[in-house]
Formats: sequence, C-alpha cells, structure tokens
Amino acid sequence: MPGQTLSPAKTRSPAAQPPKSQPTAPPKPKPGVSAVEMGARQREISVSEFFTKNRHLLGFDNPRKALLTCVKEAVDNALDACEEAGILPEVVVKLEAVANGGPPPPPSQASRFRITVTDNGPGIIRQQIPRIFAKLLYGSKFHRLRMSRGQQGIGISAAGMYGQLTTGKPVQIISRTSARAPAHYFEVQIDTKKNEPLILEKKQIAWEFPRGTQVTMEVEGRYQKGRASVDEYVEQTIIANPHVKLTYATPEGETKEYRRTYDELPPSPREIKPHPYGIELGMLLKMLHDTTSHSLAGFLAGDFSRVSPHLAAEICKAAHLAPRTRPRDVHGQASENLYKAIQSTKIMAPPTNCLSPIGERAILSGLYQQIKGDFYTAVSRPPAVYRGNPFVIEAGLAYGRGPVQAQADQQKKAVPLAEGETDQGDDRAEARFPAARW
Amino acid sequence: MPGQTLSPAKTRSPAAQPPKSQPTAPPKPKPGVSAVEMGARQREISVSEFFTKNRHLLGFDNPRKALLTCVKEAVDNALDACEEAGILPEVVVKLEAVANGGPPPPPSQASRFRITVTDNGPGIIRQQIPRIFAKLLYGSKFHRLRMSRGQQGIGISAAGMYGQLTTGKPVQIISRTSARAPAHYFEVQIDTKKNEPLILEKKQIAWEFPRGTQVTMEVEGRYQKGRASVDEYVEQTIIANPHVKLTYATPEGETKEYRRTYDELPPSPREIKPHPYGIELGMLLKMLHDTTSHSLAGFLAGDFSRVSPHLAAEICKAAHLAPRTRPRDVHGQASENLYKAIQSTKIMAPPTNCLSPIGERAILSGLYQQIKGDFYTAVSRPPAVYRGNPFVIEAGLAYGRGPVQAQADQQKKAVPLAEGETDQGDDRAEARFPAARW
Repeated sequence: MPGQTLSPAKTRSPAAQPPKSQPTAPPKPKPGVSAVEMGARQREISVSEFFTKNRHLLGFDNPRKALLTCVKEAVDNALDACEEAGILPEVVVKLEAVANGGPPPPPSQASRFRITVTDNGPGIIRQQIPRIFAKLLYGSKFHRLRMSRGQQGIGISAAGMYGQLTTGKPVQIISRTSARAPAHYFEVQIDTKKNEPLILEKKQIAWEFPRGTQVTMEVEGRYQKGRASVDEYVEQTIIANPHVKLTYATPEGETKEYRRTYDELPPSPREIKPHPYGIELGMLLKMLHDTTSHSLAGFLAGDFSRVSPHLAAEICKAAHLAPRTRPRDVHGQASENLYKAIQSTKIMAPPTNCLSPIGERAILSGLYQQIKGDFYTAVSRPPAVYRGNPFVIEAGLAYGRGPVQAQADQQKKAVPLAEGETDQGDDRAEARFPAARW
Repeated sequence: MPGQTLSPAKTRSPAAQPPKSQPTAPPKPKPGVSAVEMGARQREISVSEFFTKNRHLLGFDNPRKALLTCVKEAVDNALDACEEAGILPEVVVKLEAVANGGPPPPPSQASRFRITVTDNGPGIIRQQIPRIFAKLLYGSKFHRLRMSRGQQGIGISAAGMYGQLTTGKPVQIISRTSARAPAHYFEVQIDTKKNEPLILEKKQIAWEFPRGTQVTMEVEGRYQKGRASVDEYVEQTIIANPHVKLTYATPEGETKEYRRTYDELPPSPREIKPHPYGIELGMLLKMLHDTTSHSLAGFLAGDFSRVSPHLAAEICKAAHLAPRTRPRDVHGQASENLYKAIQSTKIMAPPTNCLSPIGERAILSGLYQQIKGDFYTAVSRPPAVYRGNPFVIEAGLAYGRGPVQAQADQQKKAVPLAEGETDQGDDRAEARFPAARW
C-alpha cells in the first residue's frame, strides 16, 4: 500500500494570506509531559533492534541488494576462515527460489530465496556457532589490526536477522572441525530484544564432508543479472581470488564451476600494533589508561609500531614529560603535549605485513580465466599509509575481445544486421562467460 | 602522513608474461590457525566501539559535517523535549573556537570548537543524565510510533563520544526540572568498552535559569559557511519551526536573534499502534510471541491500528485459524497463512495523528521571517502511508528579492561593474540575512 493518500487530518487550515503579525505573548506552557514521566520512559535499545530499523546501514536497503549482501557475508566468512587456517578455499554457493505457497516461481519472479554457502574451512567449534550466527557485534576480527574481508562481527548475523525478519526462518548451520569430530547441526535465531542467540535445534548429524562449514538462510530477495548482482559478485570474487575454487549453483538450475587458477594462498597477513600517527587524542588517553606498562617510555615503545626505546625517550623529552611517568598520570594538558610531541616526531612508517596483496601474477591469472581479451595488465602498488593504517592499491585491466571472439564476430558480420539490430548484448554476455576458457 | 609511499614489501614479483598454466596439485593445507584457536578469539564488540570505527554511519564523516551533526543532535533533543512538555521552545546555540595551546585561532582556521546548547525545556531528572548523554542506544523515543526529531537514542551520546575521541574532553551538562529544584551539573564520558557512562563530576550548582537543560561539548571540527553549514542549519530550523525562539552566538562573536513568529506549538503527536500492512512476517511472529492477549482475535484487535473485533474475526477466517487460537501457537505455515490473510484483507489506513505537520500558515510565517521575496507559498499535503507508516510532505517556496532589495539593486547597478565583477555573492548573503526583517 505504498503512497496511498488519506483524507487530510490534523493539518492547520491553509492560509492563502500571509499571517497577520500576532502579539507576542510570553510563552505559556501547555499541559505536557514532565521530566519525571519522560525519565521513566527511558530505556536501553538493543543493537539488534537498532539495526532492524536501520538495516540500510548494513546493506539491506532493498530485496535485490539484500540478496547480494547475504551471499557476500557468507562467502567473506568462508574465505577468511579458510585463509586464516591456511587452507586453499573450496566454496559452493547455491541459490534457490523458494515457493511461498504453490509451486516455486521462476527466479526472476521469486521474492524468496534460500542461500546455502559451503566451505572446506577449519569449521567452528560447537560452543561458538550460536553467537557467531545469531548475535550482532560478536567476532574475532574487530580488535586486531590486520587485513581481512570481514571485520566488524556483524555481517553474517545481520544477514541471518534479515532472513528472520522477512521470512521468519532460522539460520541453519552445519559445521565440522575434522574428520574425527562429529558434524554439528544448529538452527538459530536472534532474540532481538537482548541481541542474544535463541537455539531452536542442535544435534550431531552425519555429513558428507570431513571438515568445513555450511550456512543456509531463507530471505526475501530479488534475483537480477547485471550490475551489483550475485552473478557479477561471484565473477569478481573469482578474478580477485584466483586461489579459490568456487561452484555457483544459480537459481535457474545451472551449475557454474570456477576452477582454481593459482595454487598458492596469499601470504598470511600479520597483526600489527597501532602506529602513533594514526591515533586520535581520545584513543591515546584510552591507551594510556588501559596499558600494562608502568612507565610512559615503556608504554610508547611497547604499545605502538615503530617506536624504539630511543625514540620513546625522545618523544617524552619533546613533551616535557619524564620517561618514568606512570601512563595513567598523563592526562589533561600533559596528554595534549604528548599528543603534539608524537605528531612532530619523525617516526618510520608502519610495517605493511598486516596486508595481504593479491599480487600481479595472481590478478593476471584471474583475468585470463574470466575475461577474454587482447591485452591484460595488472599492478600492485607499493603499500601506503593513511592515518597510521597501511593500505595497498591493486588494479587489473583486460581489454579487447580476444582473437577467437574477434574472428567469430567477423564471420557473423558477414550476415548484415537489420536496422536497429545489434549484436552488442550477445558479445558482452559471451565476453563475460566465454564458452571455452584458456 | 596521508598517502605516504613506502618501499614495496610482501608483493609477489610483477609478471610481464602471462603465468604459465601450473599443474593443479591437490590443495595441501599450510600451517594455519585451528578452529579451537579461532574460537578462543571470538568476543563481544560493544556498540560504542563499533560506532567509534564506523562514525561515518552517524554523521561524523569529516570535521565539517561532524560539527553540524553535534549542533543538530543537541538542538533536536532540546526541541523534542520542549514540545513533548508543551513548552514553547527558547534555544540558545553558542559556538566558540577553542585555543589548542596559544591564543584562540580565527574561526575559519580553528580545528576545535566548544558547542553549548541551552533550552527552556522540562529538564532531565538527575538519575537519567549520565545515560542519556553517555550511553549509545538509550532513549525514550525508539519504541513508540510517533513523530519526533530524534528517534534512535544514539544522537547526542554519539556526539559526546566523538568529542571525547577527538579532544579527550567530557560532555558537560546542567539540568534543572523546576525553579524549586536544584540544578545538577555533570561531566560524563562513555566507557567505550562497556558502552556505559563514566561520571567524572557531579554536583548541585546555582544556575541562572529556573528550568531547562544545557549541554556543552568540545569537538574537533571545521567551521565554514554555505551549504550544510551550522549557519544554514540554524536558518532552516527557524523557517521550519517558527514557534521557536532561537539565539545563535556565532564563532565570530556575532549574536543572531531569531524571534518567534508563530506563538503556538504544533499539535502534539499521538502514539499509534502498528498498522497490519506495515508488519513484516518476522515482526508478526515476534508480536504473536510477545503479546499479552490470550486469543488470536484479541491480539489482532488489541495490538494493531484499525483492526476491529469484527475485522479480526474476518482475518482469522481467511487464514483458516480459530479466533480463540493462542497467539503463541501460531507459527510455521499457520503464521504465513495469517500474514497473507492480513495482506489480502481490506483495512482502513492508519490514523495520522502520530504526525505533527508544521502547517501551511506556520511555514509561510517562517519564510516571511527569514527570506525576502516577492512571492511566497506553502503546502501541507494530506498524510499518506508507506509500509504502514504514516508520513506527510510539506513544502514552502519563496521567490524573488523583495521590493526593498530590488530597489537597492537598481541603485547599485547605476555604478557599472568592472569586467568579471559580480554582485551575486553580496545579494545572496543579504537575501538570507536581511538587515531589516519584516
């Protein structure tokens, strides 16, 4: 019932004339609510309730984008887990249109989908499964400074919550940590009032795979091709991750196999300490308060990247603070002086092994596999630093149609096109999904 | 040190040649982290930590926007509190550039500002002050269905947290609920690890005002004129809220008085129940679970807008469910049937007294006051409904320069402009800040 119009109500009567200036009487209070009554209404809002109302902040703006977000969150988790465990990832993505009373509709008409993502990763220990999938802001990657796809501990549980909200269905998880361990099956939902998992079902089951995790969600969604579609996401994931073997079962019943074209994991990123240049004053105060160091110099050298004991002493001197000052005693103007001393001291840029670039060889490998062109290039720039955080830019480019395709086009051109007819659409589709890969 | 370039590290060596196809060996696990080790690293992330990293989601993208967001959150709270208490609002906004070692810089150069917003509202009871200003997701307006500026219980505490992070300074609050009650002074910060307030100072003080709240924050910011500036926000607030008396002390030391031009509060909006059309399946399930009604028909008639007992019976019948079914027993396919029955039953649109339109008279009044033009118009459309939520669109338009300004321009034009010279800048400034208001 979008945009339905009602009869006007409670609007002040329209004024065609400008309002006459009114005598400005002193404001007299209307009967209203008192401070005590207002105070009694104050309460905590759970983060799940907040993101139920504000789901657009997490990528669930509309059914089309929501479907993509759900797939992406599950694949991100699968790849992160595999790489962290040193396992070359094998991922299966399955998308099915779900009947909503009556026979299953064609995918382009469907409004409900079942998403299943299976990986060969390390698996998840039983105790952690409910919270990982049914509690927002729970995770292992938030506090560490190193590159990973997921970071916030909110993605997969938000996807599950979106499913719960739109279809009422729980998230189903199967996970197994080794061939010697049993596989565990869970059905979980979020108790949105508390942001805690509700376990609807848990049991040991027989599972065909020796190790890995499978997550299944049923969500409201819309399946379309083209920009920002699940299909495009899968292709791009494969280009950027040629070390991944990915199988994609489309809602149309097609199974696309993307084989691994690069048999090496990217170098494992290392966790680093924060760089002094990237710290805001408030964060510095918090670190001074929380540190286990007993001296300011020890704190500077121990809790940051690239601060040697010698440099720590230099910073203390510039801030007019004794190196043996207790960190907790540094606040107010002293902390501001320390902050400025840090900014004006020359400190080496942070280490960049917290990054794991794809690398030029691997990007090229991904491009060859996915895109048929005449010319390919790729570049991994040297790492750079923004606000103390290292980052790296990598780019790949494929150009042209490839010799085979160009030849095919020439033959096709022999048959003249009718007015307004175009072969562009076909070209594009074939360029993205070459029949024969090389 | 933004964008500083480092020597390359950890990047695979560039390949000018396409990589030779490699023998696809079975993936052999590298030494990595086990499921148990990963599980041990999982932990809760507090909502304060999340929004410290993701402050752009709350309007703190950059220093300029952050300054505006802080002012807006404080003014929103002031106006909401006054209106809810039935008090014609008088608000004072004060912006000061803060010295950061050395004399205070000119406002356009300053990077730190002190924001003080004072209102004549109902005040806040002492016990609630710390959590309202130093706990994210705490408030009185989140769960109710009625119009207000603030909704989420996150705005003012996020502004305080931003100040804490960028300047290390606590939020200062003075509040008093009546002339017979003492004024309370607080200094609070957020313990971001727990998302709970830390009270640095609390005491009773003498305060010049008989009732109201004052909040002071020190934040990193940038003060500029023009689009999305604090100055523009203040002007627009006055146009849209002609029942507000607002004083704005600019960082340049100017004091702008915007007098009240409409001596009536907008009609107080009423809280409504959710409309059945606006409920998603997951929410329906939650309501079925949480209701205090003992029968399905009672639940439908009692917990929703516009569902009479007669209509409730009709919905039950369409869903093939007995009206006396216990709400908690409705799940699975039965709940889907109920959901569909609701969608296919004709239900009157929701009441719209949860809205409080400004009204055409008041919009015109605001425009006359703020903008000098030849032609004015305003319209309040009838309320409409989207996803069960009533909304209303109101618009006002002022056009032209006004007779006085046009005359002044003519006189000015007598002095010919030099090539490339323009008087547009001046015009615009004067049109927005007419020297003599009428």
